[in-house]
Amino acid sequence: MRIALLGGTGDVGEGLALRWAYHTDHEVVIGSRDPDKARTKAEEYETELSSRGVDCKINGFENEMAADRARIIVLAVPAYHASDTVEAIADSLDDDDILVTPATGMQRDDDGFHYHRPGAGSVTQLVADAAPENVPVVGAFHNLAAGRLADLDADLGIDTLLVADDDDAKDIVRLLADGIDGLRPLDAGGLANAPEIEALTPLLVNVAMHNDGLHDLGVRFD
Amino acid sequence: MRIALLGGTGDVGEGLALRWAYHTDHEVVIGSRDPDKARTKAEEYETELSSRGVDCKINGFENEMAADRARIIVLAVPAYHASDTVEAIADSLDDDDILVTPATGMQRDDDGFHYHRPGAGSVTQLVADAAPENVPVVGAFHNLAAGRLADLDADLGIDTLLVADDDDAKDIVRLLADGIDGLRPLDAGGLANAPEIEALTPLLVNVAMHNDGLHDLGVRFD
Repeated sequence: MRIALLGGTGDVGEGLALRWAYHTDHEVVIGSRDPDKARTKAEEYETELSSRGVDCKINGFENEMAADRARIIVLAVPAYHASDTVEAIADSLDDDDILVTPATGMQRDDDGFHYHRPGAGSVTQLVADAAPENVPVVGAFHNLAAGRLADLDADLGIDTLLVADDDDAKDIVRLLADGIDGLRPLDAGGLANAPEIEALTPLLVNVAMHNDGLHDLGVRFD
Repeated sequence: MRIALLGGTGDVGEGLALRWAYHTDHEVVIGSRDPDKARTKAEEYETELSSRGVDCKINGFENEMAADRARIIVLAVPAYHASDTVEAIADSLDDDDILVTPATGMQRDDDGFHYHRPGAGSVTQLVADAAPENVPVVGAFHNLAAGRLADLDADLGIDTLLVADDDDAKDIVRLLADGIDGLRPLDAGGLANAPEIEALTPLLVNVAMHNDGLHDLGVRFD
């Protein structure tokens, strides 16, 4: 399956691109608002994969063109760009496309990081509100430490939680997640259950800050 | 150390009472609004422990009397009783006592369970607001599945997160948590970081509801 990683030049996008290219046969394309940057990063990913014996072509495009070329469109952009990005690519989306959103809103104060819940209820819901009516939205990959994800030498052994109101779309994203070694997809229900998933990300950062030896944390449900 | 479990007749209180009595030398006392119920449940716990070769005395009292007898007072009561319970026992609290709160607010709708955040910011903060000024409050044991905790045959292998503004009090509760086999205490910072911990409990319930074979879930940070 062809997967477009919009914001694929950022650290979460890089991690997902490298993992899918390394562990699966899915074709990855990199999107960015700046097509030159997308092409440059795509070449870097190819070089990294080639050094590990994986020769694959990764193309880079402007976001809309990347979305147009893929069935799975992952919005690996900051939370405050999520709605804008969906609106910018709306004309490129077909009914059998799936939008995947891993973004969460955080803010920091003196005590630590906190979940910054948008008025819509969650960032996942913001994306759903901005998406064309017939295009399903799946929340996934919210709680992954980007540096660990992008380091192909790092074992994962962690879970990712999926929310969607469209069960077929959720099943497809579950299979995509399951293709990444060490990542276990778990179903967390409908889109309305997204806030508690997004709130887990600042908690992971706080726990890493306060405990020696713990960093780049993920979570395992057991 | 003597630990009072207020609401110790409920399921979280039962689990903590049994685990501390079974795995450590701490003395446990059970509190309830109804002293007869406290005594009856304390005898049940003694019987359960005795059947496993642990002979110890567990006394049951009305909440205020239980609090008066202990240095560590765990508020194992529903979130909506947390403030009332603190007010009811306030005269029994000394400056070297520590209040521990595991309660979290949840509400259910058609989609699943959601974090019901109180106006104070968190249930943990509600307890801190109700506590006498010199008595430190530690949030801990929020995300433990009660049935699994109370089943001494069940392995834990999970984490519990601690928040407090008083580092000495947090250290003491960390040691108490660490005494329970299979429970790893992790520091999550100050009281202001409690909401994301409390929000994890409904998420655990949602994940257990939507995934065959997963139930009584806890969480491991890795």
